[in-house]
Amino acid sequence: MKILKNKLKSELNIRTEKNFPVQGIEFIDIHPLLIQKEVYNEIIEQFTLELKNKKIDYIISPEARGFLFGCPIASRLNVGFIPVRKKGKMPPTTVESKFEYEKEYGKDSLELPKLIHNENYANKNFYIIDDIYATGNTARAIRQEIEKLGGKVVGTGVVINIKELNEDDVFDLIEIQEE
Amino acid sequence: MKILKNKLKSELNIRTEKNFPVQGIEFIDIHPLLIQKEVYNEIIEQFTLELKNKKIDYIISPEARGFLFGCPIASRLNVGFIPVRKKGKMPPTTVESKFEYEKEYGKDSLELPKLIHNENYANKNFYIIDDIYATGNTARAIRQEIEKLGGKVVGTGVVINIKELNEDDVFDLIEIQEE
Repeated sequence: MKILKNKLKSELNIRTEKNFPVQGIEFIDIHPLLIQKEVYNEIIEQFTLELKNKKIDYIISPEARGFLFGCPIASRLNVGFIPVRKKGKMPPTTVESKFEYEKEYGKDSLELPKLIHNENYANKNFYIIDDIYATGNTARAIRQEIEKLGGKVVGTGVVINIKELNEDDVFDLIEIQEE
Repeated sequence: MKILKNKLKSELNIRTEKNFPVQGIEFIDIHPLLIQKEVYNEIIEQFTLELKNKKIDYIISPEARGFLFGCPIASRLNVGFIPVRKKGKMPPTTVESKFEYEKEYGKDSLELPKLIHNENYANKNFYIIDDIYATGNTARAIRQEIEKLGGKVVGTGVVINIKELNEDDVFDLIEIQEE
């Protein structure tokens, strides 16, 4: 495991666990990034610098770990936040659309909330934030759904990018590669 | 439903749904509070004002909706954030302790993450943030678990307090009462 971008190089204390949650997956535990206030602060700061001049209406992040970074970034940028919820968490009357996608281990069903005042996703600019980018399936599914609703995804930013699993153009702070 | 505290009185657009997720529960959908950037910003601002002079080591919030407010508040205060995760989300080696409690609809199993560098919860000051305070069972279970680990809960703050369901001393921004 190599951690790039020297500002965050030391004292990250990211924990990994082989064969969790299923056999063959090496789990990356990002909780230490929040527990250490200096690291958490630096992460939010670097995203703010990257995004502050982009035209963004909403930060959008998937439940639950995406919220850990997406919410403080939205708050710092003073833009709205759209939580992508797992199926069944929102009353049906408040759901704008539902979609399914394949993740590394199993299928996932996600839902987007309705906006307010009969506003909809069309012609809005969304920026996706998540904790970890592996195959990119989650971000890709969110992007497709937003585009189906007429919105525009202006970029994707993640804290940790597992570079050997994708060749996508995402903004990242930490790049992890197999030794 | 009455919404108190005049700064947030208008334009909240909180949605409610009867009999969700189960019969007899009136669900309060807080997503509009995030979707509207002015409201989201005001909520985080008011918590920051309330908490900035308290001695807090960590903001702690339960998965998943607690993250929506706890994370930006921790970030703004420049303190660490502890996510209380649902059972099975963390590798066992990274779990500090597990606990169960009764909520309004069914039982829930929660887990606290280990801190880093052999640090533990003893003698640290925690402030609980959540979206909604109803019976208070979630916050009470978190408080008990932190105290069992030797830590101190210096307060609880919530966005919405359903006053007829509790008599607890919590900081809140919005109070809801039956008509």
